[in-house]
Amino acid sequence: MDIEMPSLFRAALEDFRWDGIAHMPYKQDGTAPFKDISRQVLFHEDSLGCELRYFEMDAAGYSTLERHEHMHAVMILRGHGACLLGDEIRAVKPHDLVTIPAWTWHQFRANAGEKMGFLCMVNVQRDRPQLPTEEELAAMKRNPAVADFLNRDHLKPMVRGRESHS
Amino acid sequence: MDIEMPSLFRAALEDFRWDGIAHMPYKQDGTAPFKDISRQVLFHEDSLGCELRYFEMDAAGYSTLERHEHMHAVMILRGHGACLLGDEIRAVKPHDLVTIPAWTWHQFRANAGEKMGFLCMVNVQRDRPQLPTEEELAAMKRNPAVADFLNRDHLKPMVRGRESHS
Repeated sequence: MDIEMPSLFRAALEDFRWDGIAHMPYKQDGTAPFKDISRQVLFHEDSLGCELRYFEMDAAGYSTLERHEHMHAVMILRGHGACLLGDEIRAVKPHDLVTIPAWTWHQFRANAGEKMGFLCMVNVQRDRPQLPTEEELAAMKRNPAVADFLNRDHLKPMVRGRESHS
Repeated sequence: MDIEMPSLFRAALEDFRWDGIAHMPYKQDGTAPFKDISRQVLFHEDSLGCELRYFEMDAAGYSTLERHEHMHAVMILRGHGACLLGDEIRAVKPHDLVTIPAWTWHQFRANAGEKMGFLCMVNVQRDRPQLPTEEELAAMKRNPAVADFLNRDHLKPMVRGRESHS
C-alpha cells in the first residue's frame, strides 16, 4: 500500500528543472512589469517559515521592479546579468550573493545575452510587493545609470506594457 | 566618511568561496564524528529567521551522522556524493534537493572521489544536533546498505575517532 508522500529527494533535471516541481512561467500581458521569467518553488517549509524559490529569465528578460517590507536573500545560480538594488547596479555571475533589504527597489535583468537564474530565500508569510508610482520611477531615473539600466532592452526589441513606464 | 556596513553584494570567488565570508573548517580531533568539512554562512538573517549555509567536504569527507528537531532544506551545489536519510541512501549531484525532516538521521558523504558541497537552509533558532548512541547506531547498521554507507571510508585510509563508532 503506497501512500503518496512528498518526496524527500528531488532530482535536478536538465536545464534547471526539478523532478516533481512545477515550472511556473509568469503570464504576460500588455501591462506586465516583467518579461520572460519563470518560478519554481524548491522548498516551501512552514516549519522553517521560509521558502527557497528559483527564478529564471530568458536572455533579455527581467524581473518586476518592486519593493516590499520582506527581505530577500539571493544567490545567482545560472548565467550572467545585472541587479539594480536601490541606486546601485551590479553585474552578477553564478554564486554571487545579493541581500535585498526591506523597502529597497530591486530588479534583476538577464542582460548578458543568456538565461539568468537565481535562488531566492524568503519568508512564507510576507507582504505584497509594491510597484513604483510614476513619480518614484521618475525620481529613480534622475540617476543616469539607473535610467540606463531600466531603459535597456536592446536584446529584445519588442515593446511591452512595462515600457510605458520608461 | 565611509561607515563600515555589511555589504549587500558578496561576490563568488574561486573554488566556492565568497568575498567577506569566513571559511570555517571544522576542527577535527581524534573523536570528531565528521571528516574534512567546512562551513560558510552565506546569509544569517534574523528578519527571515533563517540562515543559508554552504558546507563542503573534501573527497572522502563526511558530515556528522546526526538528527535534531529542526529541519534542513538542502541543495547540492558542487560535486557528487551520497546522502543517508533515515534508512534511505541516495547518490546526489549538483542541484539535487534533499528535505531532512525533524528527528531523521542523516549524513552526507563525498564518496565519489571529488569535493562535494551543499547549501543548507535552516532556522536561526534551532536545537542542538543529537549523535546516535551505540545502540541506535547498531540498530541503523542492521540495514546492510546503511552499514555499508557508514563504514565506507575507502578513499581515505586514515583511521579517525569517528571510526570507533564503526
